Amino acid sequence: MAVGLNAFPEIPEIKGVRFAAVEAGIKKANKKDLVVFELSEGSSVAGVFTQNQFCAAPVRVCREHLASDTTTPRYLVINTGNANAGTGKSGYEKAITTCEAVASQVGVQKHQVLPFSTGVIGEPLPVDKILAALPNALSSLKSIGWKDAGLGIMTTDTLPKGAFRQVEVFGKIVTIGGISKGAGMIRPNMATMLGYIFTDAAVDQKVLASLLKSTTNQSFNRITIDSDTSTNDSCIAVATGLAENESISDLSCGDGLVFAEAFLAVMQELAHAIVRDGEGATKFVTVEVTGAAQVNDATKTAFEIAHSPLVKTALFASDPNWGRILAVVGRAGVEDLQVDKVSININGCEIVKNGGRSSDYTEEAGQVAMAPSEIHILVDLGAGDCSDTVWTTDFSHDYVTINAEYRT
Amino acid sequence: MAVGLNAFPEIPEIKGVRFAAVEAGIKKANKKDLVVFELSEGSSVAGVFTQNQFCAAPVRVCREHLASDTTTPRYLVINTGNANAGTGKSGYEKAITTCEAVASQVGVQKHQVLPFSTGVIGEPLPVDKILAALPNALSSLKSIGWKDAGLGIMTTDTLPKGAFRQVEVFGKIVTIGGISKGAGMIRPNMATMLGYIFTDAAVDQKVLASLLKSTTNQSFNRITIDSDTSTNDSCIAVATGLAENESISDLSCGDGLVFAEAFLAVMQELAHAIVRDGEGATKFVTVEVTGAAQVNDATKTAFEIAHSPLVKTALFASDPNWGRILAVVGRAGVEDLQVDKVSININGCEIVKNGGRSSDYTEEAGQVAMAPSEIHILVDLGAGDCSDTVWTTDFSHDYVTINAEYRT
Repeated sequence: MAVGLNAFPEIPEIKGVRFAAVEAGIKKANKKDLVVFELSEGSSVAGVFTQNQFCAAPVRVCREHLASDTTTPRYLVINTGNANAGTGKSGYEKAITTCEAVASQVGVQKHQVLPFSTGVIGEPLPVDKILAALPNALSSLKSIGWKDAGLGIMTTDTLPKGAFRQVEVFGKIVTIGGISKGAGMIRPNMATMLGYIFTDAAVDQKVLASLLKSTTNQSFNRITIDSDTSTNDSCIAVATGLAENESISDLSCGDGLVFAEAFLAVMQELAHAIVRDGEGATKFVTVEVTGAAQVNDATKTAFEIAHSPLVKTALFASDPNWGRILAVVGRAGVEDLQVDKVSININGCEIVKNGGRSSDYTEEAGQVAMAPSEIHILVDLGAGDCSDTVWTTDFSHDYVTINAEYRT
Repeated sequence: MAVGLNAFPEIPEIKGVRFAAVEAGIKKANKKDLVVFELSEGSSVAGVFTQNQFCAAPVRVCREHLASDTTTPRYLVINTGNANAGTGKSGYEKAITTCEAVASQVGVQKHQVLPFSTGVIGEPLPVDKILAALPNALSSLKSIGWKDAGLGIMTTDTLPKGAFRQVEVFGKIVTIGGISKGAGMIRPNMATMLGYIFTDAAVDQKVLASLLKSTTNQSFNRITIDSDTSTNDSCIAVATGLAENESISDLSCGDGLVFAEAFLAVMQELAHAIVRDGEGATKFVTVEVTGAAQVNDATKTAFEIAHSPLVKTALFASDPNWGRILAVVGRAGVEDLQVDKVSININGCEIVKNGGRSSDYTEEAGQVAMAPSEIHILVDLGAGDCSDTVWTTDFSHDYVTINAEYRT
């Protein structure tokens, strides 16, 4: 059951982007499992992908096609129900076959098609089902009704995830909208499976790539559900330019900054949505580490807390077992940790001060602090001015059930 | 429920070692929770402790007392039910008070007493209960009935853990015996909470320290249940020398090697016992990584597999979801991983070959391989001659239940 996840928003038309979601029969009957996006000619496209060395065949093909030449991608094809990972040469060929089928039907080159897959790892991709469903998808492209696309890329997600913002850039209203999915094997490293962010703003391709990379590090690369980095993580940003604004080339000030902030807001909302719908989640947990001597100390401490099964089970029980958090801080590998300067605060309740239990702390106050479904764990290392934030979930019986029965 | 854990063995008398286990009332009624060991004068003693920087007060005191001077420890005092960690200055003083109380009652110096605690982190140590129970413990010291000591150091363990070996060293029969406990927050780093190994052999102190360190790296430092390194891990080795053998000074050959091998066997049996009784465990899992270019690649890959919640829940379900193992290998940080050289074998069934599903593999064969409670996962990286092995458990509903309800 998702934690505080809003209903799918009414994302408006994004000029230059059309899509369709159909049933190819890869997942169970009556489930949309094939999504196609069409991008207008001349769109800027940027992607970030998993750092897992066992990356899936479609990730390899995406990287090759994005690097292949100067013609930009025109189609994204996404199937769920099968990850096409660990499938060797035959899996690679099936990803190429998918691209070729789209290309021949719409009259583009095959490297202008980017393939994506998500689902069980190691099973042969049922490419025939995809090929059979493509004509239907390509003939039903539309500009609104984004919820269908959100539904079409889900695996163990319980709800579709979307977000959008509209801002004025150089006198033009531009829209930034996107969809994402989770909900397990979530510890993205460079990107997550799957995020797609579209805008009709005109954005220089290199600027878009830089923006995607920096905002990924403040959104998808800062969430974790179970510490397992997927083989298929992919996040794609598309700027069609059809809003006809003056092209954005500087993100550091003025309207460029307004756009960058709106872009980050969409990225964070989509990333948080994945956590809110994390497998078995009953809590949405923000882990903020401040007072670090270097950012890396804050980042790794926050991730270690977010990954600890003991912390996560205590969160599930709403148990203020702060000793487990303290134990993680001690093993997180912070150099020269001054244990007597560490403080821990949960939802505004000061629990640990100077490395030990705060004199004002009571077990009752801790229980009140841990009761809500939204939890903010704030750890201050007392060593400097650097900080970082990670978002995660608790660890529940449902997580075990979902993952013990995933393939059955 | 423990996995394949043998009944507590009949450890014979170890000359120079006496012990008592009593009820101090720290845990629930009718549970032994205070154990005292007496060591004969002139024993060699060595210890390894947690690398968690938030180490518990008794760990700090142990380190100080072991370093303090040349008089060797004579008493070990262990309480369960409270870890005396995250308790600041007052916790430190209570650990010292415990040592002083023992010292004054038996007529040794306070730094000849080593304190140990295990249980909930962050609660004040009820030192008065310990002081009240000490006279009873010190007046009931005995040489056999080791199961009482094993019971007396348990927390969430379901069964007491002990092991022993007898070997001939320079014409004398010597005994090596010990006890250990788990069962959560288990990812020892240099040692685990708590292991105690005793021998009546004469062993040079430096040789004993070296042997303890090297065998720890092949036993306690190669087990993991939940990746959480405790604040209290401690492992102590004692050699009383009362077997009157010629003192062991070389472990690399002859009788020294015989002794070292027997010592390692006891260490591994105690370490494996902790895994077999891991919280919620239904499987005992050996993760062996071979064919690595360097040992560190094998070690970290094995640990990442052992820590993956997705691998662990698949093990719980007896599901041959090998794609999850493959995904971990890909994210484990092995430099220059040749994905097309990786093979995975489970209980003798070849599942992955050359980085993809083995052509001979069938889902049925995978299910047969995953059915037993003893699982051997063998990953070959195809890159070199280095290897390492880690032991772990699966991840079950009971793990969540135990840790969500630990303090209630």
